[in-house]
Amino acid sequence: MQRAKKKYMEFKALNIAEFLHGTIEGDENISVNNVSKIEDGKPGTLAFLSNPKYERYIYETEASIVLVKNDFTPERAIKATLIRVDDPYQAFASLLDLYEQAKQLKSGIEQPSFIDPSATVGENIYFGAFAYLGQNSTLGNKVKIYPQVFIGSDVTIGDNTIIYAGAKIYDGSVIGSNCIIHAGAVIGSDGFGFAPRADGSYQKIPQVGNVILEDHVEIGANTTIDCSTMGSTIIRKGAKLDNLIQVAHNCEVGENTVMAALTGIAGSTKIGKNCMFGGQVGVAGHLTIGDDVKIGAMAGVSNNIKAGKTVLGAPAMDHDQALKSFVVYRRLPQMRDQLIDLQKEVTELKSKLNKQ
Amino acid sequence: MQRAKKKYMEFKALNIAEFLHGTIEGDENISVNNVSKIEDGKPGTLAFLSNPKYERYIYETEASIVLVKNDFTPERAIKATLIRVDDPYQAFASLLDLYEQAKQLKSGIEQPSFIDPSATVGENIYFGAFAYLGQNSTLGNKVKIYPQVFIGSDVTIGDNTIIYAGAKIYDGSVIGSNCIIHAGAVIGSDGFGFAPRADGSYQKIPQVGNVILEDHVEIGANTTIDCSTMGSTIIRKGAKLDNLIQVAHNCEVGENTVMAALTGIAGSTKIGKNCMFGGQVGVAGHLTIGDDVKIGAMAGVSNNIKAGKTVLGAPAMDHDQALKSFVVYRRLPQMRDQLIDLQKEVTELKSKLNKQ
Amino acid sequence: MQRAKKKYMEFKALNIAEFLHGTIEGDENISVNNVSKIEDGKPGTLAFLSNPKYERYIYETEASIVLVKNDFTPERAIKATLIRVDDPYQAFASLLDLYEQAKQLKSGIEQPSFIDPSATVGENIYFGAFAYLGQNSTLGNKVKIYPQVFIGSDVTIGDNTIIYAGAKIYDGSVIGSNCIIHAGAVIGSDGFGFAPRADGSYQKIPQVGNVILEDHVEIGANTTIDCSTMGSTIIRKGAKLDNLIQVAHNCEVGENTVMAALTGIAGSTKIGKNCMFGGQVGVAGHLTIGDDVKIGAMAGVSNNIKAGKTVLGAPAMDHDQALKSFVVYRRLPQMRDQLIDLQKEVTELKSKLNKQ
Repeated sequence: MQRAKKKYMEFKALNIAEFLHGTIEGDENISVNNVSKIEDGKPGTLAFLSNPKYERYIYETEASIVLVKNDFTPERAIKATLIRVDDPYQAFASLLDLYEQAKQLKSGIEQPSFIDPSATVGENIYFGAFAYLGQNSTLGNKVKIYPQVFIGSDVTIGDNTIIYAGAKIYDGSVIGSNCIIHAGAVIGSDGFGFAPRADGSYQKIPQVGNVILEDHVEIGANTTIDCSTMGSTIIRKGAKLDNLIQVAHNCEVGENTVMAALTGIAGSTKIGKNCMFGGQVGVAGHLTIGDDVKIGAMAGVSNNIKAGKTVLGAPAMDHDQALKSFVVYRRLPQMRDQLIDLQKEVTELKSKLNKQ
Repeated sequence: MQRAKKKYMEFKALNIAEFLHGTIEGDENISVNNVSKIEDGKPGTLAFLSNPKYERYIYETEASIVLVKNDFTPERAIKATLIRVDDPYQAFASLLDLYEQAKQLKSGIEQPSFIDPSATVGENIYFGAFAYLGQNSTLGNKVKIYPQVFIGSDVTIGDNTIIYAGAKIYDGSVIGSNCIIHAGAVIGSDGFGFAPRADGSYQKIPQVGNVILEDHVEIGANTTIDCSTMGSTIIRKGAKLDNLIQVAHNCEVGENTVMAALTGIAGSTKIGKNCMFGGQVGVAGHLTIGDDVKIGAMAGVSNNIKAGKTVLGAPAMDHDQALKSFVVYRRLPQMRDQLIDLQKEVTELKSKLNKQ
Repeated sequence: MQRAKKKYMEFKALNIAEFLHGTIEGDENISVNNVSKIEDGKPGTLAFLSNPKYERYIYETEASIVLVKNDFTPERAIKATLIRVDDPYQAFASLLDLYEQAKQLKSGIEQPSFIDPSATVGENIYFGAFAYLGQNSTLGNKVKIYPQVFIGSDVTIGDNTIIYAGAKIYDGSVIGSNCIIHAGAVIGSDGFGFAPRADGSYQKIPQVGNVILEDHVEIGANTTIDCSTMGSTIIRKGAKLDNLIQVAHNCEVGENTVMAALTGIAGSTKIGKNCMFGGQVGVAGHLTIGDDVKIGAMAGVSNNIKAGKTVLGAPAMDHDQALKSFVVYRRLPQMRDQLIDLQKEVTELKSKLNKQ
């Protein structure tokens, strides 16, 4: 079993330059174990300089290594070791990716853990201690299940998917490949459905559907996605949900739609693709939100929204109209005073006119 | 130990008709393993036709079996096998119930799990792997504790209650019978109470009370209910709380009150019975909300509400008043323009009058 | 291993009086196992009388023991045993503290649990069953890790910190001493960062930073704090966060700042010290909130706020202005009617004047 460290992998300038096909200026044996922004670089970290606006920081940075453009000409002495590359930002991003992949080298099945004899697991998986895999469930290849994850019965999880510690996947869920589910997320909890009885109490409506996450979906920490009453609650390919979001039963979230934290989507609402939701948005049930819709933070959506629209406010309005209404709202007390003044003036005018 | 599958239990038309005291028209050996809505029925599923508005779907549905009324007369050929019953919706609901019960056949104590020697457990319980039962705690009969649930010390859990994976029950909590607590819910965490010190820091006020859930309460995934400072935070009989709700210390939620997701109730607020709260509602502390109150989604309640009222908005207002104010709010920019126009006209009138 | 009970520790009046240096009036052998408010005292509980307003309750209380001031002179007979002290509230608070400390006597390492061989643990720790401590992580002295807690690799946790059941601490987190992290909280989940690709899909931006909680920080149940993209998301000394709060990547929360439940702070926002946030507040990203700022419940902050200000509303405004605007908002329909009336009057005046 291998587990990589987050912060203490050491890389030498020599090896980094080789990986990036860059050229070194300075100490080729200096090593780093983390990254930093150039403006707050610390010894032992690697930074990059891409935007000329930040050039002044390179003369003061404490970062040990800085990636710079091939044609960068310093105006003064630089303490850091430089690695010259074509595109410092791209190079930096590829280092981060490498770093992340190294972090994900965990593999093997830790003990104690629980894998039902009827479950099937792929090759090169990581299955952490105290994780649970229920009856007839299936894990694809290279899946990483962190400790204390619960996976119920009849769950399918595609290749390369990562489920972080303590996430809970209810029976019958279908999780695609290359998904990431963060700690504490709950997939497939019962939809909130109750039929009122004559005496004021409620009869639970069984929720026998499931949740489907398509490929490349990311679900944030402690986010909850309820199963459908019948059929499936669906999160389409490439959608990204932040932390503490609620998606109710029978909803559908379109491809590549992103939602910020604490947003709530009520039951049976269908959301299009490539939408962007700010934080703490609320969307009522049984609505249709078109493709490419943008919803500002804290907006309350109680009507369908056509494709391409941007809305704001609670209740949500067209973005420009919302801004205009809000500008006047801030000055409502003055406006009321003006109205009262005007009433007085008109009363005076009338009395004057009547006297004539 | 028995664990039922969510999706793959096969039932033949023959057996379903027998269970429902219905009569079959079509292939009595056709089998289904799931349910669907008639408008998106798939092979291998069972649907129902109750509302005549949906009749047109029965001629196209791919569902293998459809429940229909005894007196249903089709206008054209139907591919599906029909089962005729008195009330198709009721019959469908009873099938769902049966299905749910079958799903809940889990029993036995999985290993490894932790049951303190001083704890007491009833008959026919399910206690999942990696679940924890603390000192002097008691589980009733037929209780189902899913994997990775934490139950602290001195907790009492009534008969037939189901606690899903990873829910956390702090010391001293009292959970009634026939309750359902969903994955990741936290019952009994410390109330948020701090006394300011002279230096600006805070002294924690010990929270030595507990949480009481009465019978037939349902608590959604990742919902949190804090213990009382002293005495008990109480969720009364039959109340249903959706996902990601916060109930603070010393609150009381009345019988059969239902709350949608992401709602927050601040400390010491008492909520009556048979109330309905929309999603993302906020209620301030130390308030009294009467019985049968309805609070619209995203409302912010900062005052007591009398029994039977319906409120909306933040701050919350009477429902009708809120709608009226909002209608004008949308037209505020025009209203301001009208006011400015009017000011000009009055100024002109005055000058005209003065010239006379 | 010792685990204390929440509700059943019995204390005699004799021992309590000794601990408080008080004097007993009544049965010195009567015992209590819980505390109560004097107005709803029950047998077997201890209450206090500090505020004279509550004196009437002492004659009716069912509490077994009541703490009173040394100079308290009852007007009638009192059933409860009295303990006379200098300051009953202070005495009560010190009993609660004692009680809490007793509750925290858990110690030892329960089995099965998982401690990586490369991890280091201090003295007198409690490490619950099914808890996980990853590679190279360090626990200070007297740390209490409840069951099912996940602590990743390279995590440092200071002395006396308590982490309740099922909290999840990602790799590289740094937790100070005397912190409390409640059940289900997630520390260090990936920041929500994605770069759009030309085809509408998103490329995940690796989040290689971490989270730092300084000393005396308290984090509520199911609250989530994302790690920084680079560097650290920081919660400063003495800050207290309630349940279900989201703090996004690269944020900083100042010393002794308190936030109520369901609040969300978007990425890279810096919040000063000694601030107070109500529940369900939203703060946009990349903002600076000064010291001593107060933000009312449900406020939506989209601009920087200067030190010492109090704001309300969504979008947030100066507190007094917000209240004034809201008062007019409630009367908007009447105001519109007045405006329409005035328009008519002015039209009439004009026509009258034109006829002259």
